[in-house]
Amino acid sequence: MRVVQVALGERSYSIFIGRLLIARLGSECKRLHLGQRCAIISDANVASIYGGSVEESLHAAGFQPIRIVTRAGERAKSLDTVQRCYDQLAKHRLERNSFIIALGGGVIGDLAGFVAATYLRGIPFVQVPTTLLAQVDSSVGGKVGVNLAAGKNLVGAFHQPRLVLCDLETLRSLPAREFRSGLAEVIKYGIIADEALFQKLEHQMPEILRRSPRILEEIISRSCEIKAEVVSEDETESGRRAILNFGHTVGHALEATTGYGKFLHGEAIALGQIAAAELSRRRTGLSSDEAARIRRLFEQAELAVIRKFSPAERKRLASAMQLDKKVSGGEIKFVLARRLGEVVWGQKVPPSDLDESLKSLGRERSAES
Amino acid sequence: MRVVQVALGERSYSIFIGRLLIARLGSECKRLHLGQRCAIISDANVASIYGGSVEESLHAAGFQPIRIVTRAGERAKSLDTVQRCYDQLAKHRLERNSFIIALGGGVIGDLAGFVAATYLRGIPFVQVPTTLLAQVDSSVGGKVGVNLAAGKNLVGAFHQPRLVLCDLETLRSLPAREFRSGLAEVIKYGIIADEALFQKLEHQMPEILRRSPRILEEIISRSCEIKAEVVSEDETESGRRAILNFGHTVGHALEATTGYGKFLHGEAIALGQIAAAELSRRRTGLSSDEAARIRRLFEQAELAVIRKFSPAERKRLASAMQLDKKVSGGEIKFVLARRLGEVVWGQKVPPSDLDESLKSLGRERSAES
Repeated sequence: MRVVQVALGERSYSIFIGRLLIARLGSECKRLHLGQRCAIISDANVASIYGGSVEESLHAAGFQPIRIVTRAGERAKSLDTVQRCYDQLAKHRLERNSFIIALGGGVIGDLAGFVAATYLRGIPFVQVPTTLLAQVDSSVGGKVGVNLAAGKNLVGAFHQPRLVLCDLETLRSLPAREFRSGLAEVIKYGIIADEALFQKLEHQMPEILRRSPRILEEIISRSCEIKAEVVSEDETESGRRAILNFGHTVGHALEATTGYGKFLHGEAIALGQIAAAELSRRRTGLSSDEAARIRRLFEQAELAVIRKFSPAERKRLASAMQLDKKVSGGEIKFVLARRLGEVVWGQKVPPSDLDESLKSLGRERSAES
Repeated sequence: MRVVQVALGERSYSIFIGRLLIARLGSECKRLHLGQRCAIISDANVASIYGGSVEESLHAAGFQPIRIVTRAGERAKSLDTVQRCYDQLAKHRLERNSFIIALGGGVIGDLAGFVAATYLRGIPFVQVPTTLLAQVDSSVGGKVGVNLAAGKNLVGAFHQPRLVLCDLETLRSLPAREFRSGLAEVIKYGIIADEALFQKLEHQMPEILRRSPRILEEIISRSCEIKAEVVSEDETESGRRAILNFGHTVGHALEATTGYGKFLHGEAIALGQIAAAELSRRRTGLSSDEAARIRRLFEQAELAVIRKFSPAERKRLASAMQLDKKVSGGEIKFVLARRLGEVVWGQKVPPSDLDESLKSLGRERSAES
């Protein structure tokens, strides 16, 4: 097991990464001096696999858990579900020192975290992420929220968990496509902050795709370390935290213009990162060689689908970027790489370069792959 | 005009108290370097009186306000209204540097503040409280939230405003009963923190009830100063901020058991404070003379209705207190006075003393009044 600390003063917390950790959940919660009553928020799929062992671990440590189960999928991340959760918490008289366990992927973490952030003006919560994407990204850093009809994540809060527990066993049951989707965020950490991690991914991708626990523990810990370090410096994204959005501007636009049905998040930001690498080559001095390595690594992870966009589609993507909630005064700002491991944020990009970068997604695979 | 500072590090802000301040709203917002777009959230009654001048002031300073109008009354403080507000903000593309103006009483301030706390994970907001109760209490300190069917204020956040602007003109149009209700909080500040304020209220109640701007400016400023000082010390109520709840345990139970229809908030906490004075006499050494002065001052403010509770009613009140969200581990804790201007919190009270204090509310007016 590895432990990563997120240093945020009195809101600091630990991330545990290892095998068979769900069995330790109860005793770890006990060390946080929380109240007896707690609520496990989970979706129907995850609850049916892990709900029992989570409850057992909590009961064994003297807690009194209730279970709130939502339907699986992004549509659960709504104000309607939030309201249903509140009603259950009130019905079972959860108090200010009661706590919430978010058991599931990013949707559940965001939803349960938002409920915890706002019920009784904020109660403690613990993340038990069960997907690779949630383990390396959404469960760490305290961004929580739900979607509106008008857009994703338009409602939310910053509310840090008291503990994050990444049980590697939960990754065994993950469908291959979802597992690869999570790798897109791991690759991102290499690009934005750690060339050595990038190289490790280049050399060990086959082993990673076989989900060897040893290598998973290593790359998940390193990803969490990088995210923790960035979040510690800039909790509420007034500056450097923006670098975590490398590839996300184009990625979000891809998700939005395809109605969130076609691409998984990781698939969309994989393409977004390839486009951002092309933009970086044009704007911030990333070498052609490094841009090619970025594309090749996504190909190795089977995340670089070739996608030719028509001029009308490229126009639609560009205007979807205008609606991103990070846009200010109507101006889109990109995170771009100078070299592997070093990025800059707040970069304006001329429409012609943006268009070229989208075109580059339609080119054939790199010759070397 | 007077200015009170709320010292909370980078979340510090000013409270302006004076006449004709709405005309200055636009220029004061300008000094905060906010975005151009903003939303005025108000109820139908208040919007019809002050909506136009607020908009005019904002337009004159170069802002682009939209207006979101809710129905008047406590029922607007719901998740349904919150959702309607979000939809309007998204429709009009409010961004992260856009802001919200809460124009109205406590209901509007709590509602609009919660919307501001959670839209795009938090955008700035400005309070323009138009009732005495909101000016001296709810607009200051950052507690925002809405009600659930299961109880009041069960959902919320801590989100400090960027500016509070108390225009004394708005108090002219306030119904007498609502004005007196606000005085219950002013009297509370005297009891918990400032004997001189208490004495001033004893001597000048007739002038206060005539709403002389000079004396209103003075007592509102002093009330805000006390609240600001308490909030600065303990923003999220982990300790001393609890003293602001003097009289509120019994007061909330009175509101809850009468379905929130019978008593205005100030009327309920006036009775709650008289009961708390009786408890303080029994438990924390408040002199009989000071307890009598407390009761007499509420009588002067026409806030001390005689209310004989049957044994069944008293039992219902006691069990309603068990449901208060501040209860922890099933134990009710009271704020009690040692003397005028000094209180202690976290006081346990035997059921018999609580029962006697509720009985005391049914006794005849004090002889001296």
